[in-house]
Amino acid sequence: MSILVVGSVALDTIETPSGRVEEVLGGSAAYFAVAASYFAPVRVVAVIGDDFPAHERAMLSSPNIDLAGLEVRKGRTFRWTGRYHEDMNIRDTLDLQLNVFADFAPVLPARYRDTPFVFLGNINPGLQGGVLDQLTQPRLVACDTISHWIEWARPELETLLRRVEIVVINDEETRMLGRERNIVRAARNILALGPRTLLVKRGEYGVLLFSPNSVFAVPAYPLEEVFDPTGAGDSFAGGFLGYLAQSGDLSEAGFRKAIVYGSVVASFVVEDFGLRRFRSLSREEIDRRYRQFVALTEF
Amino acid sequence: MSILVVGSVALDTIETPSGRVEEVLGGSAAYFAVAASYFAPVRVVAVIGDDFPAHERAMLSSPNIDLAGLEVRKGRTFRWTGRYHEDMNIRDTLDLQLNVFADFAPVLPARYRDTPFVFLGNINPGLQGGVLDQLTQPRLVACDTISHWIEWARPELETLLRRVEIVVINDEETRMLGRERNIVRAARNILALGPRTLLVKRGEYGVLLFSPNSVFAVPAYPLEEVFDPTGAGDSFAGGFLGYLAQSGDLSEAGFRKAIVYGSVVASFVVEDFGLRRFRSLSREEIDRRYRQFVALTEF
Repeated sequence: MSILVVGSVALDTIETPSGRVEEVLGGSAAYFAVAASYFAPVRVVAVIGDDFPAHERAMLSSPNIDLAGLEVRKGRTFRWTGRYHEDMNIRDTLDLQLNVFADFAPVLPARYRDTPFVFLGNINPGLQGGVLDQLTQPRLVACDTISHWIEWARPELETLLRRVEIVVINDEETRMLGRERNIVRAARNILALGPRTLLVKRGEYGVLLFSPNSVFAVPAYPLEEVFDPTGAGDSFAGGFLGYLAQSGDLSEAGFRKAIVYGSVVASFVVEDFGLRRFRSLSREEIDRRYRQFVALTEF
Repeated sequence: MSILVVGSVALDTIETPSGRVEEVLGGSAAYFAVAASYFAPVRVVAVIGDDFPAHERAMLSSPNIDLAGLEVRKGRTFRWTGRYHEDMNIRDTLDLQLNVFADFAPVLPARYRDTPFVFLGNINPGLQGGVLDQLTQPRLVACDTISHWIEWARPELETLLRRVEIVVINDEETRMLGRERNIVRAARNILALGPRTLLVKRGEYGVLLFSPNSVFAVPAYPLEEVFDPTGAGDSFAGGFLGYLAQSGDLSEAGFRKAIVYGSVVASFVVEDFGLRRFRSLSREEIDRRYRQFVALTEF
């Protein structure tokens, strides 16, 4: 089954202790789409400027990625410049230019409207809700958000959460949204807002799943080389929803396998800058690391 | 089989966001001994002053804990005062008085010398080595250490590590000892110093096991209430070695089960101040949470 993703497509300039790249393909929708495309067809809704380089756009091209909803608007593409510390859990945003992304108002091509699986990447929660209004029969809706919206658009965000099954955010966002320092209690507060499932991304420490009846904890795959953590969270979400859309198994067990697939895909993307690692990554490699993941965690 | 523990027995004054306790039983040997005693007989080597309150000492009393090696010396007991932040991963030491612990030179009672399982709690690595000299046939030796010794006594510590099978330290200590920011590479560097196994304690994020041929990652049990993180690491080590001493299974699978038992015991101790939670904790509760741990992590 197909997956719709709405979010940003950007040109990122990234500096990490391992090196630097300039103006490469980035953005939540880009990472999500390529990650999910290993498992299921993906439909992208995003906006870029008419300055977007053809060779960067080419990295999004795949038989499994539909770009009919990738609007090209006159003007400059969204740009982000960030620098990671020696401790790559910490990064500074050095420059942020929204450009054409500032006026992004997602409009779905007609053939996207019946997409069953939906990922609402981090944009204004009002716009995320507007995407849901355009869908005829979404089967499973997941969303991301960031501290900015939790702080400045909580009413709109809470309205959205009543229409969403799965929230995918990091631990600080969980604490903010749940208004509670303890992560378990914060998670319960978030589930009380509507979603059936909360996934807490903890970077190198793995992922927690909370639902009304269960908790699932999985560590991250320990890596010897992390070149660039950018996009790990969106790649996780892509692998997660991609596997669900492929398997159609929305049981607790299906969610758990999907979380491990998401973790595996995320563990690959950080091995090189931007989306580069995906250029050579095969589905066979993903399945092999999935089996290594089983060996890593079973007792 | 029996376990020998050498370390501190202290009077702790602890302040956390949940409250405050004054001059309660603490110290690495105390937490380790009580945690391990759920699984196997424990022999304690430590020193206290003649001011040690009888009711605090009583918390160490158990048919499974041999206190023949708990020396009572004229003078004041080791005291530690600490305050935890709202984020309980961060704590400040407000006061530290070594007192009789300053001249601690562990001497093993004759009947301790054939103990097969050994835990060298955090003391000067030269003294840790001196304990090994007094043992006739240790079967499995584990040690802890802290940044102070890594920084100021590295040669002595490296000498010790050649005589130790298992190192149990936290992630910052792993990075320091392995002279490397990446935890996987740091672990390899530490294994090259002699130990067969490294356990990395990551607090609320769980534990990593590294051995030459495998890696095992386990999350921590997510808790709704953490009252006091003091002693979690030593309780983990106690549950871990306790289970190994009870089962005698030193295979990879045995180590993994032992790590989960250690994590379970640690998850209980933080539910109340100091060692209080152990007063009511039963082995049945430990086994029940072990099964919950399986449910928490299986996929």
